[in-house]
Amino acid sequence: MVGSTRSPARGSERPGTIMAGEMAEQPEVLRRILDVAAPAITATARGIADREPRFALLSARGTSDHAALYAKYLIEVELGLPCGLTSMSTTTAYGATPHLADVLVITVSQSGGSPDLIASTTAARAAGAITLAVTNNPDSPLAEVSEFHIDLLAGPEKALPATKTYTAELLALYLFVVGLGGTGPAPAAHRLPRLAEQVLARGDEVRELAGRYRFAERMVITSRGYGYPTAKEAALKLMETSYIPALAYSGADLLHGPLAMVDNISPVIAIVTEGRGGEALQPVLDRLRGRGADLVVIGPRAKVSAASGGFAMPTADVPESLQPLLEILPLQRLAWEIAMARGQDPDSPRAIAKLTETH
Amino acid sequence: MVGSTRSPARGSERPGTIMAGEMAEQPEVLRRILDVAAPAITATARGIADREPRFALLSARGTSDHAALYAKYLIEVELGLPCGLTSMSTTTAYGATPHLADVLVITVSQSGGSPDLIASTTAARAAGAITLAVTNNPDSPLAEVSEFHIDLLAGPEKALPATKTYTAELLALYLFVVGLGGTGPAPAAHRLPRLAEQVLARGDEVRELAGRYRFAERMVITSRGYGYPTAKEAALKLMETSYIPALAYSGADLLHGPLAMVDNISPVIAIVTEGRGGEALQPVLDRLRGRGADLVVIGPRAKVSAASGGFAMPTADVPESLQPLLEILPLQRLAWEIAMARGQDPDSPRAIAKLTETH
Repeated sequence: MVGSTRSPARGSERPGTIMAGEMAEQPEVLRRILDVAAPAITATARGIADREPRFALLSARGTSDHAALYAKYLIEVELGLPCGLTSMSTTTAYGATPHLADVLVITVSQSGGSPDLIASTTAARAAGAITLAVTNNPDSPLAEVSEFHIDLLAGPEKALPATKTYTAELLALYLFVVGLGGTGPAPAAHRLPRLAEQVLARGDEVRELAGRYRFAERMVITSRGYGYPTAKEAALKLMETSYIPALAYSGADLLHGPLAMVDNISPVIAIVTEGRGGEALQPVLDRLRGRGADLVVIGPRAKVSAASGGFAMPTADVPESLQPLLEILPLQRLAWEIAMARGQDPDSPRAIAKLTETH
Repeated sequence: MVGSTRSPARGSERPGTIMAGEMAEQPEVLRRILDVAAPAITATARGIADREPRFALLSARGTSDHAALYAKYLIEVELGLPCGLTSMSTTTAYGATPHLADVLVITVSQSGGSPDLIASTTAARAAGAITLAVTNNPDSPLAEVSEFHIDLLAGPEKALPATKTYTAELLALYLFVVGLGGTGPAPAAHRLPRLAEQVLARGDEVRELAGRYRFAERMVITSRGYGYPTAKEAALKLMETSYIPALAYSGADLLHGPLAMVDNISPVIAIVTEGRGGEALQPVLDRLRGRGADLVVIGPRAKVSAASGGFAMPTADVPESLQPLLEILPLQRLAWEIAMARGQDPDSPRAIAKLTETH
């Protein structure tokens, strides 16, 4: 089930330089998708819209699974299309043969090389699905077995923790979904590269925040709605780089049990989007404060001021559906800073490989 | 968004007696579902089969969400019906109006009282869905707003951590899905109450295992396929009762990053089903052992013997799809034992309420 075929980042000369470089490339990657990739993405969306899908399924692993979750919110909210995330083992381990006529199956993978994704996409296409692969490698086996393909154009990613391919996946999926709905992107989409630059320029603020977690042994990360994929991706980045066990919950799920483990020495990070998701999260923040939790907010300045600390986001005029592209940036950097402070190399965490071959 | 309207278990005289009593009731509850509830469940399944649903969506929170995940595997594997778990905030926070003709929407809730579930089910029905509620309260608002209803007949559940309603949900959903497929239950289903009694009688073994986690500050729980919902439910039980941060991952997802945080002082529990899910998990177990993790197995005796410890399951002649009903039992007890050893009251964990009113 598992193989580690390449680990390109091992042995970089100075720890963290590869991941830092790839994080810094993100504004440029976003710009490239908007300027170069967008027409092809829109054409793909139109081709798929003509086939009138009635249901969408998304398949992915790891970081790409969080991009898939973002797309699930978009598809449900913007298109009103019922949508699910694939439990891949039903096909790969149990040999299920689903009925997939009218079903759009979207597979998201940086490498396009994971055998389970290739197998499940092949099976889906054979079962009548409309298949779309979103990858950073148009020559990958996954791109080949899929009927449609979106190329992220993010350039090679060599650090093991994915950063620029994540934000690239978010933007490509956004452009695809709004193309499928026939509306086209919000004007604010074109401001994302510049806003991303502004956020990335504030690395000092994140370094200060990182000091707080130097000795943290666990962490809870929460959000709601469009911010929830960001919470999951931030937790994964923290685990991969700093090895802090980080538990991500939607605010609603947190109250159904896990809240019991939060006490006054539990660090909590909340991603507070500006919009309905952030509003729905407020009562959860109140409960967390009531339990004495140390609460750090990534979100609007007013919410940061009301918390123990945080990072104020310049998202006031950005639609909530686009905010995840910016909110993850300080959290990627936070994971990097903590790992560096602990003397670990975020470029090549122990135990994992860039291409994880799960079956 | 949040209200805590009743907390029935607070103030019980001896800590843990209510949860212990409800765990012990499980064989009887399973028997009641098989003997009393089954005909109505099968009739409901036939009524829904006549409507020829093409997709299924499942909505739930907390423990019931893990029962819903189990049903997702069953529906995909046994029926080949594409299936998704609802992101409830798309309806309740963002007001999405999905197109749900031919879609079966199953809402699972012990109380049938959570406002977000009532709202999303009401919206689904208005959008043309076939709605089914699975609850332990036929007079609940959720049962009322749903076209179809399955009554768990589990009797009142008063401890805050759900136990008997979880196994009841699993069995009711199993009977429903095999009824929808027209096959009817496997013969082994009728042996479940007796097997559950045998497992519950081995509390001493679980107590011994619990000693190992007396001072654990975190835990990783993993499985694959049909065992994955058990991993998630076990993690929730541990968090609710003993307050140990417990991270649940499918084996495949664990390799995509989180494995980096596992080292030689990381306790790992693996639920190894007898069947394809267990086989697909083996390479993950090998990787965990390679990282020096302390590995405890809930599964076949041979797998337990090859690990640092565990609990051997009597599931050799039980179909993999029914094993989750038994595998959760030692894990519920484990959570209870650790909480008791730490001097906490598992009947009424801090900070949470039996009916969590999320919106």
